[in-house]
Amino acid sequence: MSQAVADHLIAQKDAILDRLMALLRLPSVSTDPAYAEGMEATRAFLLNRLTELGLENVRLLDGGGQPAVYGEWLGAPGKPTIVVYGHYDVQPPDPLGLWVTPPFEPSIRDGRLYARGASDVKGSTLIAVETIGAFLAVEGGCPVNVKFFLEGEEETGSPSIRRIIETHRELLAADAVLSADGGRASTSIPTLNTGSRGLCKLEVTLRAAGKDMHSGRYGGAVRNAIHELSRLVSTLHDAQGRILVPDFDSDATPLTNRDRADAAELAGDDGAFFAGPAALPHGDPLYSVRERVTLRPSIDVNGMWGGYTGAGSKTVIPAEAHAKITARLVPGQDADRARQRIVDHLRAHCPEGVVLEFSPPGGNSPSSTLPDGHPLLVAAEAVVREAAGRAPARARIGGTLPITGIFQEMLGIDTLMFGYAMPDEDVHAPNEFFRLSSLEDGLRGWPALLSRLGGQDAAAFAPWRKAPTA
Amino acid sequence: MSQAVADHLIAQKDAILDRLMALLRLPSVSTDPAYAEGMEATRAFLLNRLTELGLENVRLLDGGGQPAVYGEWLGAPGKPTIVVYGHYDVQPPDPLGLWVTPPFEPSIRDGRLYARGASDVKGSTLIAVETIGAFLAVEGGCPVNVKFFLEGEEETGSPSIRRIIETHRELLAADAVLSADGGRASTSIPTLNTGSRGLCKLEVTLRAAGKDMHSGRYGGAVRNAIHELSRLVSTLHDAQGRILVPDFDSDATPLTNRDRADAAELAGDDGAFFAGPAALPHGDPLYSVRERVTLRPSIDVNGMWGGYTGAGSKTVIPAEAHAKITARLVPGQDADRARQRIVDHLRAHCPEGVVLEFSPPGGNSPSSTLPDGHPLLVAAEAVVREAAGRAPARARIGGTLPITGIFQEMLGIDTLMFGYAMPDEDVHAPNEFFRLSSLEDGLRGWPALLSRLGGQDAAAFAPWRKAPTA
Repeated sequence: MSQAVADHLIAQKDAILDRLMALLRLPSVSTDPAYAEGMEATRAFLLNRLTELGLENVRLLDGGGQPAVYGEWLGAPGKPTIVVYGHYDVQPPDPLGLWVTPPFEPSIRDGRLYARGASDVKGSTLIAVETIGAFLAVEGGCPVNVKFFLEGEEETGSPSIRRIIETHRELLAADAVLSADGGRASTSIPTLNTGSRGLCKLEVTLRAAGKDMHSGRYGGAVRNAIHELSRLVSTLHDAQGRILVPDFDSDATPLTNRDRADAAELAGDDGAFFAGPAALPHGDPLYSVRERVTLRPSIDVNGMWGGYTGAGSKTVIPAEAHAKITARLVPGQDADRARQRIVDHLRAHCPEGVVLEFSPPGGNSPSSTLPDGHPLLVAAEAVVREAAGRAPARARIGGTLPITGIFQEMLGIDTLMFGYAMPDEDVHAPNEFFRLSSLEDGLRGWPALLSRLGGQDAAAFAPWRKAPTA
Repeated sequence: MSQAVADHLIAQKDAILDRLMALLRLPSVSTDPAYAEGMEATRAFLLNRLTELGLENVRLLDGGGQPAVYGEWLGAPGKPTIVVYGHYDVQPPDPLGLWVTPPFEPSIRDGRLYARGASDVKGSTLIAVETIGAFLAVEGGCPVNVKFFLEGEEETGSPSIRRIIETHRELLAADAVLSADGGRASTSIPTLNTGSRGLCKLEVTLRAAGKDMHSGRYGGAVRNAIHELSRLVSTLHDAQGRILVPDFDSDATPLTNRDRADAAELAGDDGAFFAGPAALPHGDPLYSVRERVTLRPSIDVNGMWGGYTGAGSKTVIPAEAHAKITARLVPGQDADRARQRIVDHLRAHCPEGVVLEFSPPGGNSPSSTLPDGHPLLVAAEAVVREAAGRAPARARIGGTLPITGIFQEMLGIDTLMFGYAMPDEDVHAPNEFFRLSSLEDGLRGWPALLSRLGGQDAAAFAPWRKAPTA
């Protein structure tokens, strides 16, 4: 049944490409109020297309910022209900001078479609939209119930997404999320994203005196808050960059052979990885670079300040110094516990009399994982295996996916990233592009995935659902 | 001859006290433009008084900021020419609510004259002015040639003093400087200030990458500039606060028994010293607290910053971090060499690939010392010995006296601090006061000192003069 839908989509792919180019001509830059008209036009385009394709209850969900575009088809009782996530906003196109062709005039060269938003993520979003439309046109219905949630603020950190979901919690109730954003970790190897690192954060204020002192009067005889905080920061890692915080990751799930094999397959070119930001390799030599940034935790001081930071010099001995610290967490690690281990470690190394204060706990996120046996993973692996002739490598990403965590917290459901963008497509940079071959791959992959998900009842998802925590 | 002058001054001390109170009523706060009228009135007061007393060429020396008040008496050919330094500006009086009586309404309680500027330094400045006037009135002349230089910007860091001296280098040519500011280091022991620590400074920029990175993508595999700079800062001192920079003070003159005996006599109450700013004692246990802050060098990071320092958190791995560092230096230490030792040490501890940049050298000042045998020191020690019945303890101060260095650099001459303020008189704080007994002590001490200085020819100062270096 999905084959007929895929064939229908492929037959129409020139029209779909034309439609994608029309969508890419609309400059939907969410960060810059100058593009308000482009945002408005893009919403109108999507509302119109969802309606044309036969979605119901098509509307905007407003949370006080850029509204999300919603549309549903709920004609498959007993089948899973899937939130289909995408976003219609794009990054600013600057610096304009570096684009070979203008960012909002889509241009095809060598099998690549160049335009701002082509890869991130209008291409994959339109694949999802057109797929549902094709099911309704060809089959008169979809294998699963669908609720589109197309965000307009992904590139600005989703400031109102929690309010939107909070206001429309019942409307958005579902069994799982399929995201058109994210997913392919390699240009040469079939991959599936199965999780992301978590995050915990703390801000430290260190006090070594009641007030700043003059080094002419006190220099040589008192503790200096910057010296003390520097010493504490330098106890977090050894000279090779290994974390020294005791028990920090003693609850982490040990890496499996499969984890390491997948990481090895996805290793890529470490030289190019470091050359991009002109960074210096560091970290635990027992792990490969890809393992360090995806399968192992990390701790970074993101900001530090104290004393006089203006022009010229001032002979002050600072009483206070500050640091912002975040840690990336791996499966098994409890985020609050990890934060507490860092706090405990800093306190243990703090000399008597020096006072440490920490920002209130909160805002920590655990890592996320689609575990073996999860219906989203089973279906997606089968689809990729069929398309690629081999099982996909499982890729974890080193970052923390905000929407994954938000859907988990607020709706209690898991997300599968199933976008068709590839990691080299210059998203957030000039000359962003999307491969035309990916458009075709997506128009085959999405029907196959929805069919497989529809092969089971909603009840199959029940064991994996959790109570919302926010 | 000085006795007659002193007797004359003491006989007039009520009138001099009245005059001091009139001077203290003029609110000469140099930092705040709201007090421009007070500054103007104070200058008029001093110009008038110097003229009344018979000084010549009385005028303002303008360097673009608050002008200095100048007046001279040059009727002692062959005798030393002495710049008499004082300052007529005062600290702001805030917080006003903590004053028992208003800061610009002088009030006498328990033998103390309370007012802003009483101790710092209108009291001692007026002692110097009245002393010269008494010599002219009683003796018809002064034992030495005198050039008053009464600054109006001491409390704002003397922003235009170099321009004033540069413009009037010939007018200010002299054999030595006598300062009414600074000098007494104890309320119970007679002391003479014989020197101050020097200063060298550097600003470090550390680069660990070409650009900031995202910890979701790079966390765990790259060097973090803040971690690296923290590690470098923590190599400057050991856990007890001892400097670890090799050869940093290998050129310092070893402490003499006399140095240590003077420091021991002046040790004071260490508990109260630390309690003031609620500071934590630290530093080389082989030296007493007073030795650490006056006779030993120190290194302090005065400011440090890098990465994200705004509200909330940002998961950035900073590419750059910065520190401002100054060191206090002791006799024998070459200031440029000391700075270079810190630079060398930081470079030696910097991992390969991490880039350090340092602000251009310059602006370093050596320590200053009035050496044994210097005519200023010989005369002053004799005066204090006569008045107190014992030799004064020699006190070095831990700070760097800007005017001492500036007069040395620009005029090539040494300065003796010979003020009568005491260290507990709450300068820069509410309820500043000056002891009435100090007024009387000063009205005896200054005539004695000028007489002794006039006991020798200008030629006696020639061996101690240096060529200006700026």
